[in-house]
Amino acid sequence: MIRVIILGAGNVAKHLYTAFYNQKSVEVVQCYNRKGLPLHPDQKENTIIQDFSALQEADIYILAVSDDAIEEVSNLLPFTNKLIVHTSGSVPMNALANTNKRGVFYPLQTFSKDKTVDFSTIPFCLEAENETDLMLLKELSTTLSNKVYEISSEQRNILHVSAVFVNNFTNYLFSTANDICNEHDVPFEILHPLILETAQKITKMNPDLAQTGPGIRNDSKTINRHLKIITDTTQQELYKTLTKAIQSKYGKKL
Amino acid sequence: MIRVIILGAGNVAKHLYTAFYNQKSVEVVQCYNRKGLPLHPDQKENTIIQDFSALQEADIYILAVSDDAIEEVSNLLPFTNKLIVHTSGSVPMNALANTNKRGVFYPLQTFSKDKTVDFSTIPFCLEAENETDLMLLKELSTTLSNKVYEISSEQRNILHVSAVFVNNFTNYLFSTANDICNEHDVPFEILHPLILETAQKITKMNPDLAQTGPGIRNDSKTINRHLKIITDTTQQELYKTLTKAIQSKYGKKL
Ligand SMILES: NC(=O)c1ccc[n+]([C@@H]2O[C@H](COP(=O)([O-])OP(=O)(O)OC[C@H]3O[C@@H](n4cnc5c(N)ncnc54)[C@H](OP(=O)(O)O)[C@@H]3O)[C@@H](O)[C@H]2O)c1
Ligand SMILES: NC(=O)c1ccc[n+]([C@@H]2O[C@H](COP(=O)([O-])OP(=O)(O)OC[C@H]3O[C@@H](n4cnc5c(N)ncnc54)[C@H](OP(=O)(O)O)[C@@H]3O)[C@@H](O)[C@H]2O)c1
Repeated sequence: MIRVIILGAGNVAKHLYTAFYNQKSVEVVQCYNRKGLPLHPDQKENTIIQDFSALQEADIYILAVSDDAIEEVSNLLPFTNKLIVHTSGSVPMNALANTNKRGVFYPLQTFSKDKTVDFSTIPFCLEAENETDLMLLKELSTTLSNKVYEISSEQRNILHVSAVFVNNFTNYLFSTANDICNEHDVPFEILHPLILETAQKITKMNPDLAQTGPGIRNDSKTINRHLKIITDTTQQELYKTLTKAIQSKYGKKL
Repeated sequence: MIRVIILGAGNVAKHLYTAFYNQKSVEVVQCYNRKGLPLHPDQKENTIIQDFSALQEADIYILAVSDDAIEEVSNLLPFTNKLIVHTSGSVPMNALANTNKRGVFYPLQTFSKDKTVDFSTIPFCLEAENETDLMLLKELSTTLSNKVYEISSEQRNILHVSAVFVNNFTNYLFSTANDICNEHDVPFEILHPLILETAQKITKMNPDLAQTGPGIRNDSKTINRHLKIITDTTQQELYKTLTKAIQSKYGKKL
């Protein structure tokens, strides 16, 4: 039985609590957050605390608080030599106070309030100062997922910037297409299957081999026609920048 | 029974042939292509023709040939007043020779040679010159999919440019993240679940509501850290352009 305490009451804290809730081999002993909020409707009230001084013994303390609060909260913990981990993709492990044993327990996924998540498909990026702690974090992660990776703070940075490309920027492209469709009364949902297939495809083949379109074909007739259809200047700039980038990347190989 | 003849032997022609192959209500009478290639290993040899003059009677002639060849091929057909359709997202219906009845049968999906497709999820965008032909195209599409839309040539243009954003440009972002990961020996596959979730999310919520990340948060500390991690200038420009676009789109609403 791994005894866990979760600090924070945001998206990650809540989804983790719910995921651990039905695990026989994990017990969430307590949850700390400033407002004394429950993380789950079924949570026992006496496991919710609002004061660091009420923190009990546990094997792992998970600081699922905002990036900016990780260092501060880790310095407020009233104990030493325990395993404390944060859940951030971008904060180095060493941001945690060195009065405790430090680690990282980063679930590489995008969590939102109202959307349930299937943890079994989520990669866990782990880091710890010593082998024993790393083993314990591995044991904890494998109760939820079998995609468990040992990742250094530097590698986590690389994943985090890559995640901005594949999640934030990609979503922005979806929102742009949504705007273009809305402007012209075309239902955006017609594009949903294409969007899903575009994502699924790169889990089966290298994205370089999946690249198609007027950019890579140097099809300037279509490119110019598209640039006439788009009237918004930001959208036009984006179309030009991405087309140029595609041409300069693949042009060399054509 | 709808009698169909497929012209062309590329990705779309082959996938359509395979999809129709097991349909009781559709018969693919013949396939024309310049090289006399079969579209399927089980295809009977006497249904493959290389000469327009050998074309038989059919209810619908599907010109699944390259965009540039649609007009030319439609002009070479040795009959008049039949229903001929093309499968292109970007070519107007009127590009087809007006000696025949014209239409469009555009499956909005990305097809590749070696990847099987599930037609039941593919939206068909249909256009025809008259109601009878449109009905016939609807009947043909619904043998494969229940996502059938009547779409004008203008609307199809809008979908086509939107498809460039959600497919070609999105794939380019995936390829960039793949490059960043490879450069630093981080397995790109760790990002696969995030990529799938990013796509799935917008089928459930408006992409504007799904937008997250340092751009929309105006988190300049993270943005500057990311710009130091990326060393390639094209990647840096792309990061800056997309971050600026996100900030100018959502900044107004913040
Ligand atoms: N959301 C994601 O998709 C995702 C994915 C992977 C990793 N992460 C990481 O997981 C961590 C938590 O993210 P989240 O999305 O769950 O954030 P969130 O929903 O914004 O919640 C942040 C939590 O931190 C608490 N907090 C902030 N400042 C605090 C302070 N000074 N003292 C005590 N508590 C404080 C907040 O409490 P109040 O409500 O009292 O302010 C809130 O409970 C972050 O490191 C994030 O980078 C997030
Ligand atoms: N691929 C997709 O993801 C996709 C999706 C939706 C719609 N479409 C549209 O579907 C159509 C076909 O695309 P595709 O991907 O199947 O193309 P493709 O794989 O490149 O195949 C094109 C076919 O057209 C034939 N062709 C080209 N010029 C010709 C000519 N002058 N006379 C006779 N045949 C000619 C080619 O024959 P040869 O081999 O003899 O040159 C080949 O069989 C296009 O309009 C495309 O825009 C494609």
